[in-house]
Amino acid sequence: MTTSKKSSPPPAQAADIEEGTAFAPKFDSDGLLPVVVTSAATGEVLMLAYMNEQALTRTLETGQAQFWSRSRKRLWRKGEKSGNTMRVVELRTDCDQDALWLSVEMGGAEACCHTGRRSCFYRVLPIGKGTAGVTLTFAEAERLFDPKTVYGHARAAKGTLKTQG
Amino acid sequence: MTTSKKSSPPPAQAADIEEGTAFAPKFDSDGLLPVVVTSAATGEVLMLAYMNEQALTRTLETGQAQFWSRSRKRLWRKGEKSGNTMRVVELRTDCDQDALWLSVEMGGAEACCHTGRRSCFYRVLPIGKGTAGVTLTFAEAERLFDPKTVYGHARAAKGTLKTQG
Repeated sequence: MTTSKKSSPPPAQAADIEEGTAFAPKFDSDGLLPVVVTSAATGEVLMLAYMNEQALTRTLETGQAQFWSRSRKRLWRKGEKSGNTMRVVELRTDCDQDALWLSVEMGGAEACCHTGRRSCFYRVLPIGKGTAGVTLTFAEAERLFDPKTVYGHARAAKGTLKTQG
Repeated sequence: MTTSKKSSPPPAQAADIEEGTAFAPKFDSDGLLPVVVTSAATGEVLMLAYMNEQALTRTLETGQAQFWSRSRKRLWRKGEKSGNTMRVVELRTDCDQDALWLSVEMGGAEACCHTGRRSCFYRVLPIGKGTAGVTLTFAEAERLFDPKTVYGHARAAKGTLKTQG
Protein backbone atom coordinates (compact mmCIF):
# COMPACT_ATOMS: atom_id res chain seq x y z
CA MET A 1 0.00 0.00 0.00
CA THR A 2 1.66 3.20 -1.09
CA THR A 3 -1.31 5.54 -0.74
CA SER A 4 -2.18 7.33 2.48
CA LYS A 5 -5.87 6.57 1.92
CA LYS A 6 -7.51 5.07 4.97
CA SER A 7 -7.93 1.36 4.38
CA SER A 8 -8.83 -1.70 6.38
CA PRO A 9 -5.95 -3.82 7.58
CA PRO A 10 -5.56 -7.23 5.94
CA PRO A 11 -7.59 -10.04 7.55
CA ALA A 12 -5.71 -11.26 10.60
CA GLN A 13 -4.85 -14.90 11.13
CA ALA A 14 -6.74 -16.82 13.81
CA ALA A 15 -3.55 -17.26 15.83
CA ASP A 16 -2.94 -13.50 15.84
CA ILE A 17 -6.51 -12.74 16.81
CA GLU A 18 -6.54 -15.31 19.60
CA GLU A 19 -2.99 -15.16 20.87
CA GLY A 20 -1.78 -11.70 19.94
CA THR A 21 -1.74 -8.44 21.87
CA ALA A 22 -3.18 -6.30 19.03
CA PHE A 23 -6.80 -5.30 19.57
CA ALA A 24 -8.77 -6.09 16.40
CA PRO A 25 -12.46 -5.96 17.35
CA LYS A 26 -14.70 -7.89 14.99
CA PHE A 27 -17.90 -5.88 14.71
CA ASP A 28 -20.95 -7.70 13.32
CA SER A 29 -22.75 -6.81 10.07
CA ASP A 30 -24.53 -3.98 11.92
CA GLY A 31 -21.22 -2.61 13.16
CA LEU A 32 -21.86 -3.78 16.73
CA LEU A 33 -20.12 -5.82 19.40
CA PRO A 34 -22.08 -7.51 22.21
CA VAL A 35 -20.87 -6.45 25.66
CA VAL A 36 -21.46 -8.47 28.83
CA VAL A 37 -21.72 -6.02 31.72
CA THR A 38 -21.06 -7.29 35.24
CA SER A 39 -20.86 -5.63 38.63
CA ALA A 40 -17.28 -5.30 39.88
CA ALA A 41 -18.65 -5.39 43.42
CA THR A 42 -20.71 -8.58 43.23
CA GLY A 43 -19.78 -10.22 39.91
CA GLU A 44 -23.42 -10.54 38.87
CA VAL A 45 -24.40 -10.04 35.24
CA LEU A 46 -26.19 -6.70 34.95
CA MET A 47 -27.04 -6.57 31.25
CA LEU A 48 -26.04 -7.46 27.72
CA ALA A 49 -25.57 -4.33 25.64
CA TYR A 50 -23.91 -3.37 22.36
CA MET A 51 -21.13 -0.99 21.36
CA ASN A 52 -20.37 0.41 17.95
CA GLU A 53 -16.89 1.73 17.22
CA GLN A 54 -17.69 5.20 18.55
CA ALA A 55 -19.17 3.89 21.81
CA LEU A 56 -16.13 1.68 22.29
CA THR A 57 -13.73 4.56 21.59
CA ARG A 58 -15.50 6.87 24.02
CA THR A 59 -15.63 4.18 26.68
CA LEU A 60 -11.91 3.49 26.32
CA GLU A 61 -11.09 7.21 26.38
CA THR A 62 -13.34 8.32 29.23
CA GLY A 63 -13.63 5.22 31.41
CA GLN A 64 -17.41 5.76 31.48
CA ALA A 65 -19.54 3.11 29.77
CA GLN A 66 -21.20 4.16 26.53
CA PHE A 67 -23.24 1.94 24.26
CA TRP A 68 -25.19 1.93 21.03
CA SER A 69 -28.91 1.84 21.70
CA ARG A 70 -30.44 -0.45 19.08
CA SER A 71 -33.98 0.67 19.95
CA ARG A 72 -33.21 4.40 19.88
CA LYS A 73 -30.55 4.11 17.18
CA ARG A 74 -28.14 6.48 18.86
CA LEU A 75 -25.09 6.62 21.10
CA TRP A 76 -26.04 6.24 24.71
CA ARG A 77 -23.96 7.18 27.73
CA LYS A 78 -25.27 4.80 30.35
CA GLY A 79 -27.00 6.76 33.11
CA GLU A 80 -27.29 9.98 31.11
CA LYS A 81 -30.94 10.24 32.13
CA SER A 82 -31.29 7.93 35.14
CA GLY A 83 -28.01 8.81 36.84
CA ASN A 84 -27.15 5.11 36.93
CA THR A 85 -23.76 5.65 35.33
CA MET A 86 -21.12 2.96 34.94
CA ARG A 87 -17.45 3.53 35.66
CA VAL A 88 -15.25 1.00 33.90
CA VAL A 89 -13.25 -1.15 36.30
CA GLU A 90 -12.04 -3.59 33.65
CA LEU A 91 -12.71 -4.30 29.99
CA ARG A 92 -11.77 -7.60 28.37
CA THR A 93 -12.06 -9.06 24.89
CA ASP A 94 -12.75 -12.71 24.13
CA CYS A 95 -10.68 -15.19 22.14
CA ASP A 96 -12.00 -14.29 18.69
CA GLN A 97 -12.47 -10.61 19.59
CA ASP A 98 -16.17 -10.48 18.75
CA ALA A 99 -17.44 -9.92 22.29
CA LEU A 100 -16.44 -7.80 25.29
CA TRP A 101 -16.72 -8.21 29.04
CA LEU A 102 -17.11 -4.96 30.94
CA SER A 103 -16.81 -4.92 34.72
CA VAL A 104 -18.27 -1.74 36.21
CA GLU A 105 -18.92 0.28 39.33
CA MET A 106 -22.45 1.67 39.20
CA GLY A 107 -23.46 5.17 40.20
CA GLY A 108 -26.83 6.58 41.22
CA ALA A 109 -29.34 4.06 42.55
CA GLU A 110 -27.08 1.25 41.29
CA ALA A 111 -29.92 -0.01 39.14
CA CYS A 112 -28.84 -1.09 35.70
CA CYS A 113 -32.22 -2.05 34.24
CA HIS A 114 -34.65 0.47 32.78
CA THR A 115 -37.41 -1.30 34.75
CA GLY A 116 -35.74 0.02 37.91
CA ARG A 117 -34.12 -3.25 38.91
CA ARG A 118 -30.46 -3.81 39.70
CA SER A 119 -29.93 -6.36 36.91
CA CYS A 120 -31.81 -6.88 33.65
CA PHE A 121 -31.70 -10.63 34.37
CA TYR A 122 -34.39 -10.80 37.04
CA ARG A 123 -36.36 -13.82 35.84
CA VAL A 124 -35.42 -17.51 35.95
CA LEU A 125 -36.37 -20.32 33.54
CA PRO A 126 -37.26 -23.78 34.85
CA ILE A 127 -34.85 -26.60 33.87
CA GLY A 128 -35.88 -30.16 33.06
CA LYS A 129 -39.49 -29.36 32.17
CA GLY A 130 -39.20 -28.77 28.42
CA THR A 131 -40.26 -25.54 26.76
CA ALA A 132 -44.04 -25.84 26.38
CA GLY A 133 -45.68 -23.06 28.36
CA VAL A 134 -42.51 -22.18 30.24
CA THR A 135 -43.30 -20.05 33.28
CA LEU A 136 -40.71 -17.57 34.50
CA THR A 137 -39.99 -17.01 38.17
CA PHE A 138 -38.98 -13.61 39.50
CA ALA A 139 -35.60 -13.84 41.22
CA GLU A 140 -35.38 -10.12 41.79
CA ALA A 141 -38.57 -8.11 41.78
CA GLU A 142 -37.50 -5.12 43.85
CA ARG A 143 -37.12 -1.83 42.00
CA LEU A 144 -34.40 0.58 43.08
CA PHE A 145 -36.01 3.48 41.24
CA ASP A 146 -39.38 4.30 39.74
CA PRO A 147 -39.12 4.21 35.94
CA LYS A 148 -42.16 6.45 35.62
CA THR A 149 -40.45 9.22 37.57
CA VAL A 150 -37.11 8.78 35.84
CA TYR A 151 -38.19 8.15 32.25
CA GLY A 152 -41.74 9.51 32.29
CA HIS A 153 -43.33 6.25 31.18
CA ALA A 154 -45.18 3.74 33.29
CA ARG A 155 -44.37 0.05 33.66
CA ALA A 156 -46.75 -2.51 35.09
CA ALA A 157 -45.98 -2.55 38.79
CA LYS A 158 -45.07 -6.22 39.16
CA GLY A 159 -42.13 -5.52 41.39
CA THR A 160 -42.21 -3.55 44.57
CA LEU A 161 -40.44 -0.22 44.71
CA LYS A 162 -37.77 -0.05 47.38
CA THR A 163 -38.42 3.58 48.16
CA GLN A 164 -42.20 3.24 47.93
CA GLY A 165 -43.79 4.59 51.13
CA MET B 1 -57.68 -16.62 13.35
CA THR B 2 -59.98 -19.51 12.56
CA THR B 3 -57.51 -21.78 10.81
CA SER B 4 -55.45 -24.39 12.58
CA LYS B 5 -52.41 -23.37 10.55
CA LYS B 6 -49.37 -22.79 12.70
CA SER B 7 -48.99 -19.07 13.13
CA SER B 8 -46.96 -16.68 15.21
CA PRO B 9 -48.61 -15.31 18.32
CA PRO B 10 -49.55 -11.62 18.16
CA PRO B 11 -46.75 -9.24 19.19
CA ALA B 12 -46.63 -9.03 22.96
CA GLN B 13 -46.82 -5.71 24.74
CA ALA B 14 -43.64 -4.39 26.37
CA ALA B 15 -45.21 -4.65 29.82
CA ASP B 16 -46.01 -8.34 29.25
CA ILE B 17 -42.53 -9.08 27.96
CA GLU B 18 -40.82 -7.23 30.81
CA GLU B 19 -43.13 -7.92 33.71
CA GLY B 20 -44.91 -11.15 32.79
CA THR B 21 -44.13 -14.77 33.61
CA ALA B 22 -44.59 -16.05 30.05
CA PHE B 23 -41.35 -16.91 28.30
CA ALA B 24 -41.33 -15.27 24.86
CA PRO B 25 -37.72 -15.37 23.62
CA LYS B 26 -36.97 -12.78 20.96
CA PHE B 27 -34.55 -14.44 18.55
CA ASP B 28 -32.61 -12.16 16.21
CA SER B 29 -32.91 -12.11 12.41
CA ASP B 30 -30.63 -15.19 12.27
CA GLY B 31 -32.85 -17.04 14.75
CA LEU B 32 -30.31 -16.69 17.56
CA LEU B 33 -30.20 -15.46 21.14
CA PRO B 34 -26.93 -14.34 22.77
CA VAL B 35 -26.16 -16.28 25.96
CA VAL B 36 -23.82 -15.01 28.67
CA VAL B 37 -22.21 -18.05 30.31
CA THR B 38 -20.79 -17.69 33.82
CA SER B 39 -19.25 -20.11 36.29
CA ALA B 40 -21.61 -20.98 39.14
CA ALA B 41 -18.55 -21.61 41.30
CA THR B 42 -16.72 -18.33 40.79
CA GLY B 43 -19.15 -16.04 38.98
CA GLU B 44 -16.63 -15.22 36.25
CA VAL B 45 -17.79 -14.79 32.66
CA LEU B 46 -16.67 -17.84 30.69
CA MET B 47 -17.96 -17.03 27.21
CA LEU B 48 -20.62 -15.41 25.09
CA ALA B 49 -22.36 -18.01 22.92
CA TYR B 50 -25.57 -18.28 20.93
CA MET B 51 -28.62 -20.53 21.05
CA ASN B 52 -31.19 -21.14 18.36
CA GLU B 53 -34.59 -22.50 19.33
CA GLN B 54 -33.45 -26.12 19.18
CA ALA B 55 -30.36 -25.52 21.33
CA LEU B 56 -32.51 -23.70 23.87
CA THR B 57 -35.10 -26.48 23.92
CA ARG B 58 -32.47 -29.18 24.40
CA THR B 59 -30.73 -27.18 27.11
CA LEU B 60 -34.02 -26.69 28.97
CA GLU B 61 -34.93 -30.36 28.60
CA THR B 62 -31.59 -31.95 29.45
CA GLY B 63 -29.96 -29.43 31.78
CA GLN B 64 -26.78 -29.72 29.68
CA ALA B 65 -25.73 -26.60 27.76
CA GLN B 66 -26.13 -26.74 24.01
CA PHE B 67 -25.48 -23.91 21.59
CA TRP B 68 -25.58 -23.01 17.94
CA SER B 69 -22.08 -22.81 16.50
CA ARG B 70 -22.06 -19.87 14.09
CA SER B 71 -18.70 -20.90 12.64
CA ARG B 72 -19.63 -24.57 12.12
CA LYS B 73 -23.30 -23.82 11.42
CA ARG B 74 -24.57 -26.69 13.52
CA LEU B 75 -25.94 -27.57 16.94
CA TRP B 76 -23.18 -27.98 19.44
CA ARG B 77 -23.39 -29.75 22.78
CA LYS B 78 -20.71 -27.97 24.78
CA GLY B 79 -17.90 -30.40 25.60
CA GLU B 80 -18.95 -33.04 23.08
CA LYS B 81 -15.35 -33.25 21.89
CA SER B 82 -13.28 -31.70 24.67
CA GLY B 83 -15.19 -33.19 27.61
CA ASN B 84 -15.61 -29.69 29.02
CA THR B 85 -19.36 -30.07 29.42
CA MET B 86 -21.60 -27.57 31.15
CA ARG B 87 -24.34 -28.53 33.58
CA VAL B 88 -26.97 -25.82 33.92
CA VAL B 89 -27.22 -24.44 37.43
CA GLU B 90 -29.49 -21.53 36.51
CA LEU B 91 -30.83 -19.93 33.35
CA ARG B 92 -32.27 -16.42 33.30
CA THR B 93 -33.80 -14.17 30.66
CA ASP B 94 -33.37 -10.41 30.54
CA CYS B 95 -36.00 -7.66 30.62
CA ASP B 96 -36.81 -7.65 26.90
CA GLN B 97 -36.18 -11.39 26.51
CA ASP B 98 -33.55 -11.05 23.82
CA ALA B 99 -30.61 -12.34 25.88
CA LEU B 100 -29.99 -15.18 28.35
CA TRP B 101 -27.70 -15.66 31.34
CA LEU B 102 -26.59 -19.22 31.92
CA SER B 103 -24.80 -20.17 35.13
CA VAL B 104 -23.00 -23.50 34.81
CA GLU B 105 -20.91 -26.14 36.52
CA MET B 106 -18.11 -27.20 34.19
CA GLY B 107 -16.97 -30.77 33.63
CA GLY B 108 -13.69 -32.13 32.33
CA ALA B 109 -10.69 -29.83 32.64
CA GLU B 110 -13.08 -26.96 33.49
CA ALA B 111 -11.75 -25.04 30.51
CA CYS B 112 -14.44 -23.26 28.55
CA CYS B 113 -12.31 -21.75 25.79
CA HIS B 114 -11.22 -23.68 22.70
CA THR B 115 -7.73 -22.24 23.24
CA GLY B 116 -7.53 -24.37 26.39
CA ARG B 117 -8.12 -21.55 28.84
CA ARG B 118 -10.73 -21.45 31.56
CA SER B 119 -12.51 -18.36 30.19
CA CYS B 120 -12.62 -16.96 26.66
CA PHE B 121 -12.08 -13.50 28.18
CA TYR B 122 -8.36 -13.78 28.95
CA ARG B 123 -7.14 -10.43 27.61
CA VAL B 124 -7.62 -6.94 29.07
CA LEU B 125 -7.92 -3.59 27.28
CA PRO B 126 -6.24 -0.47 28.68
CA ILE B 127 -8.59 2.32 29.82
CA GLY B 128 -7.93 6.03 29.46
CA LYS B 129 -5.41 5.73 26.63
CA GLY B 130 -7.71 6.02 23.60
CA THR B 131 -7.92 3.37 20.91
CA ALA B 132 -4.93 3.99 18.65
CA GLY B 133 -2.68 0.94 18.75
CA VAL B 134 -4.40 -0.57 21.75
CA THR B 135 -2.27 -3.30 23.29
CA LEU B 136 -3.95 -6.15 25.08
CA THR B 137 -2.61 -7.62 28.32
CA PHE B 138 -3.00 -11.30 29.14
CA ALA B 139 -4.90 -11.72 32.39
CA GLU B 140 -5.05 -15.47 32.09
CA ALA B 141 -2.48 -17.21 29.91
CA GLU B 142 -2.51 -20.66 31.45
CA ARG B 143 -4.04 -23.44 29.38
CA LEU B 144 -5.91 -26.22 31.14
CA PHE B 145 -5.75 -28.47 28.11
CA ASP B 146 -3.78 -28.68 24.89
CA PRO B 147 -6.04 -27.71 21.98
CA LYS B 148 -3.81 -29.59 19.56
CA THR B 149 -4.39 -32.85 21.39
CA VAL B 150 -8.10 -32.26 21.89
CA TYR B 151 -9.07 -30.73 18.55
CA GLY B 152 -6.16 -31.78 16.36
CA HIS B 153 -5.17 -28.26 15.38
CA ALA B 154 -2.32 -26.19 16.67
CA ARG B 155 -2.53 -22.79 18.30
CA ALA B 156 0.43 -20.46 18.80
CA ALA B 157 1.77 -21.35 22.21
CA LYS B 158 1.45 -17.95 23.87
CA GLY B 159 0.10 -19.38 27.07
CA THR B 160 1.70 -22.02 29.18
CA LEU B 161 0.07 -25.40 29.44
CA LYS B 162 -0.75 -26.39 32.99
CA THR B 163 -0.06 -30.04 32.43
CA GLN B 164 3.02 -29.45 30.28
CA GLY B 165 5.92 -31.48 31.68
